[in-house]
Amino acid sequence: MQAIVIHEAGDLRIETRETPEPGPGEVLVQLAVGGICGSDLHYYNHGGFGPVRLKEPMILGHEVSGHVVGSGSGVEGFTDGDLVAVSPSRPCGTCSYCGEGLRNQCLNMRFYGSAMPFPHIQGAFRQMLVADAGQCVKADGISAAEAAMAEPLSVGLHATRRAGEMLGKRVLVTGCGPIGSLLILAARRAGAAEIVATDLAPNALAHAARAGADRTINVAEQPDSLAAYSENKGYFDVLFECSGAPQALASGIAVVRPRGVIMQLGLGGDMQVPMMQLTAKELDLRGSFRFHEEFAVAVEMMRKGLIDVKPLITQTESLENAVAAFRTANDRSQAMKVQIAFS
Amino acid sequence: MQAIVIHEAGDLRIETRETPEPGPGEVLVQLAVGGICGSDLHYYNHGGFGPVRLKEPMILGHEVSGHVVGSGSGVEGFTDGDLVAVSPSRPCGTCSYCGEGLRNQCLNMRFYGSAMPFPHIQGAFRQMLVADAGQCVKADGISAAEAAMAEPLSVGLHATRRAGEMLGKRVLVTGCGPIGSLLILAARRAGAAEIVATDLAPNALAHAARAGADRTINVAEQPDSLAAYSENKGYFDVLFECSGAPQALASGIAVVRPRGVIMQLGLGGDMQVPMMQLTAKELDLRGSFRFHEEFAVAVEMMRKGLIDVKPLITQTESLENAVAAFRTANDRSQAMKVQIAFS
Amino acid sequence: MQAIVIHEAGDLRIETRETPEPGPGEVLVQLAVGGICGSDLHYYNHGGFGPVRLKEPMILGHEVSGHVVGSGSGVEGFTDGDLVAVSPSRPCGTCSYCGEGLRNQCLNMRFYGSAMPFPHIQGAFRQMLVADAGQCVKADGISAAEAAMAEPLSVGLHATRRAGEMLGKRVLVTGCGPIGSLLILAARRAGAAEIVATDLAPNALAHAARAGADRTINVAEQPDSLAAYSENKGYFDVLFECSGAPQALASGIAVVRPRGVIMQLGLGGDMQVPMMQLTAKELDLRGSFRFHEEFAVAVEMMRKGLIDVKPLITQTESLENAVAAFRTANDRSQAMKVQIAFS
Amino acid sequence: MQAIVIHEAGDLRIETRETPEPGPGEVLVQLAVGGICGSDLHYYNHGGFGPVRLKEPMILGHEVSGHVVGSGSGVEGFTDGDLVAVSPSRPCGTCSYCGEGLRNQCLNMRFYGSAMPFPHIQGAFRQMLVADAGQCVKADGISAAEAAMAEPLSVGLHATRRAGEMLGKRVLVTGCGPIGSLLILAARRAGAAEIVATDLAPNALAHAARAGADRTINVAEQPDSLAAYSENKGYFDVLFECSGAPQALASGIAVVRPRGVIMQLGLGGDMQVPMMQLTAKELDLRGSFRFHEEFAVAVEMMRKGLIDVKPLITQTESLENAVAAFRTANDRSQAMKVQIAFS
Repeated sequence: MQAIVIHEAGDLRIETRETPEPGPGEVLVQLAVGGICGSDLHYYNHGGFGPVRLKEPMILGHEVSGHVVGSGSGVEGFTDGDLVAVSPSRPCGTCSYCGEGLRNQCLNMRFYGSAMPFPHIQGAFRQMLVADAGQCVKADGISAAEAAMAEPLSVGLHATRRAGEMLGKRVLVTGCGPIGSLLILAARRAGAAEIVATDLAPNALAHAARAGADRTINVAEQPDSLAAYSENKGYFDVLFECSGAPQALASGIAVVRPRGVIMQLGLGGDMQVPMMQLTAKELDLRGSFRFHEEFAVAVEMMRKGLIDVKPLITQTESLENAVAAFRTANDRSQAMKVQIAFS
Repeated sequence: MQAIVIHEAGDLRIETRETPEPGPGEVLVQLAVGGICGSDLHYYNHGGFGPVRLKEPMILGHEVSGHVVGSGSGVEGFTDGDLVAVSPSRPCGTCSYCGEGLRNQCLNMRFYGSAMPFPHIQGAFRQMLVADAGQCVKADGISAAEAAMAEPLSVGLHATRRAGEMLGKRVLVTGCGPIGSLLILAARRAGAAEIVATDLAPNALAHAARAGADRTINVAEQPDSLAAYSENKGYFDVLFECSGAPQALASGIAVVRPRGVIMQLGLGGDMQVPMMQLTAKELDLRGSFRFHEEFAVAVEMMRKGLIDVKPLITQTESLENAVAAFRTANDRSQAMKVQIAFS
Repeated sequence: MQAIVIHEAGDLRIETRETPEPGPGEVLVQLAVGGICGSDLHYYNHGGFGPVRLKEPMILGHEVSGHVVGSGSGVEGFTDGDLVAVSPSRPCGTCSYCGEGLRNQCLNMRFYGSAMPFPHIQGAFRQMLVADAGQCVKADGISAAEAAMAEPLSVGLHATRRAGEMLGKRVLVTGCGPIGSLLILAARRAGAAEIVATDLAPNALAHAARAGADRTINVAEQPDSLAAYSENKGYFDVLFECSGAPQALASGIAVVRPRGVIMQLGLGGDMQVPMMQLTAKELDLRGSFRFHEEFAVAVEMMRKGLIDVKPLITQTESLENAVAAFRTANDRSQAMKVQIAFS
Repeated sequence: MQAIVIHEAGDLRIETRETPEPGPGEVLVQLAVGGICGSDLHYYNHGGFGPVRLKEPMILGHEVSGHVVGSGSGVEGFTDGDLVAVSPSRPCGTCSYCGEGLRNQCLNMRFYGSAMPFPHIQGAFRQMLVADAGQCVKADGISAAEAAMAEPLSVGLHATRRAGEMLGKRVLVTGCGPIGSLLILAARRAGAAEIVATDLAPNALAHAARAGADRTINVAEQPDSLAAYSENKGYFDVLFECSGAPQALASGIAVVRPRGVIMQLGLGGDMQVPMMQLTAKELDLRGSFRFHEEFAVAVEMMRKGLIDVKPLITQTESLENAVAAFRTANDRSQAMKVQIAFS
């Protein structure tokens, strides 16, 4: 079988690996679709991000769906041919954070396609994938492409839940790549009354509008449009900061109302924060990172038609064109979510 | 002008009253539509409920909309002809609960059409109504009938907010009159993944299904259907108890999962509660009563098309047929929300 | 070795059992002290409570401390002679509730001395006890008698935490047996500004006052004293209902302020609840049941001198007088916490 | 009467002003004690802080107590001679934030001794002070010096409440001036199990230890001591950042555990924040600013002996030595809280 392997920045190869066999409690999945995430792009473009650096070849990918083609002993509930979304989140279940139910904070997390520990955690961009049955969520009724969106949608659901009750709220989203766009979908699904979205790229803003933003602002062209919301100490109840840009966070802090909530999803490095405003308005700046239990919820929401992610999937490439797919994904003027068809 | 006045149980009259004039900060509203609420029916059928009893004639009504036809000094933002939803919630603004922001718990609340203090608080079923500008929310873009639904929708939004973050949750609604049906709409709008609704009346369950319930159970006909959800200590994250029937609460407690939330909206008297289960599963039973800041949110959600209440409005009668309207509203086999057209 | 075994109501025996041996990850504990809990008394007096009934002989006891006298392979951090408090809470770690971190709601809980599943979960009133290392918390610096109080104190800490932030709050405690008295200690430790306690027994109220209650009310003698707190819709922010008596809950609901919290700990059967008041004041009635992570906290709080449980230990009997100890514990006019010295 | 007036940085004068008279609802207070706060020092040393700059002479002071010597019409509950703590918090009661109960976020706040609006809000360092009756809290049973500590203690109580439930928690306090020291008292009172405090000044750390810190770390001398707490993603549940120093916040973020809470009280300017860690550990960074309802709680906690602030009062100067008092307060090697005796 073939897999998509990153060796170092710019060196992405399609390589042959041995087909794995499922052990007890495991399922063998023939991969259907894999989506390219921003972190995959970071490995491809820069060999990592911040302190996370490639030290050995690593199979990329963690947004995947496929069809069950076999299973080990003790697996129940799956039939060969079932379409499944496969969660990349594999907490240990026994560390102190797992014990508390904070599984996305597991001390021994083995999240697909992650260079953080060494040896690295190999990813899921491979034609045949063995996964724990518990990672697999049946996705009948939706397409394999949608099922592969369960992962980034889970990120959005996790952040939306962590932001608290959302009914009738005013929401600002800064940075409208796939995560920002999914947050618009999630926030609207959770009952947000008004959603304003900002970005620098017209393509991203067009997707934001399609996802349901009531207003989009190109902060490159209209830097002052957002500032108008700062009257009376601010307007928005919630800010989802998805860009990782210090300027976006700073401009957001200025327009979030007292006691408002800021969810930080964008992963930049150190950021200069206008702490005086944050303190005086008693804002609540919360990090949001990955997800766990939201994965099954994401599949359910798509299956029930409660969230429609299809418009975000902008390009699909075949496995042999995987490198081209990564190049396409790098072009924010064209791409939103780029997926690879594995079968 | 004419008003709908309750004198005692069964004695409802259309009477002539003097047309009021707006003072400073007040708006004169020509009533368009008034919806009949369960509490209006209690006065009509029984002269009150629990300790709340009629002691003098009282104008009924608190679900109203109308058009601005005049205003006192200092009023800004309204033009004659504006359609407005009028909130019946009039807290004092100065008691200790108002100071804490718990305005629906105001010690001196003057809620329209309420026999709780004496002299009673006269209601809003009158052709001409003077209201504080702050009670009026502009409702252009929706019909007067929808605007008159802002009040019961606010009850639903308040309860949904108090239930906390709802995205992907499993919800049970017991009792599908107007409030239960609006809670289905509100819970779905807030992101509930699965909604099951119970009632004894086929008409109510049909409305529940139309409002978005994934499943409806007629507990008169299928008393065991709900009990199937009690496996593994329960299934539902949230129960909205809208019936006020002890049996509904008890059966709900059996199927809410540990640490689940029960919102009690139905106003029965004393209720026998299976406290052992509630304690051992660490359930969280919360009362929900009226609303305040949710009123403007309700209008906004309707104007933006985020919640559609129109299917719940089943009958509309003219003012002269007001008594017939009350009789219709009493018939749960036919009616959901019955409204009176005042102009 | 000897163990205290209940056969049926009134039939409590001291029996000889084989001394167990610790397996991998387990510790052998020579029991020092065991406290008699209300549920032990229920088995002794009535053969169970509610649906929980004895169906086979069962070793009682779940409030215990002892000294390490051996350990299986893989155990680290314990030395022979260490005084340990042993938690009776043994969740499975793998069910859905454990996965969410709600370990006290484990579907497969094996809590010491519990007749709920069959075969029953044998208890800890035995001279030699094998426990998982994870159940044992080192308790140097406090006495074995105090260490045996870690369990009921954990119940109090769990309920206090579930009641939320407590600094400066007004607290009512109804029912001042050991759990109520420990809640007074816990609530004061958590910063309660004012604590009022009610009971029918002068002995219980004397303990409540010693634990820090600012005022005690004998509701048998002064039934109206509590009602004075109902002005302005209520006075107390939090009620800890520890009696299980419907009358206590009802009188408490009348004096808790709007949006106040009621923690239900007392395990009665079905209870008549004044639901109209609860709904209209939007009270928040929450069950609280057992504990898990609070056990280590309880030991730490005692070791640091932050909570002093010693005054609650009123009688200590030797193992051979175990039956007499149970009789003493039944006498609320004399006893608060009765303990058995096992070594 | 005399008042302490700041004209510009370094120009502090004792000036004569006319004695005011109480109007309806107002109380005349003969000032007893006034404490010097960090913001008073900022005006004295730098003429302001950040964007807040002196533009006209301003009476300083907002931590005051005194004795009632007269009152206007309609005032009840005060007798001449009563010792009162006077809250400097004067929200308007009618803006949108007041309506929601967020009175410390009032859009029209008139907080004593604040140069933020122009004309400035004159302060309370004057021999005779007229205050609304609602600002005055009777303080019998404690000294005037303690009563003047109600204001900074309120800041600590507000931040502790906003940090959420504290029982058994591990707490880090960075910056142990008066606010940091009061947070140690408040966090311990709220049930913190372990408190570690850091500062650069031995005098501050000595006070922190006296206030109850289990361990103090001089980060100038032992910069690595704190870092040891970063194992397993962090150790502390809560950080109270009271220094306003970016380095303190950054080092704190490294040792707060996942989902931990950081309360930011220190008012620096923009701060460089290690946002990657904050995001990945899903920390919750909340501003905390002033207080409102906590003022009466602060007085009550002191009166009941639940919090003892006396050790923090290190120097008291007479009114004529006010300038010397400010110089003393500037010397962190000697001073903690410096107060001025007005009578």
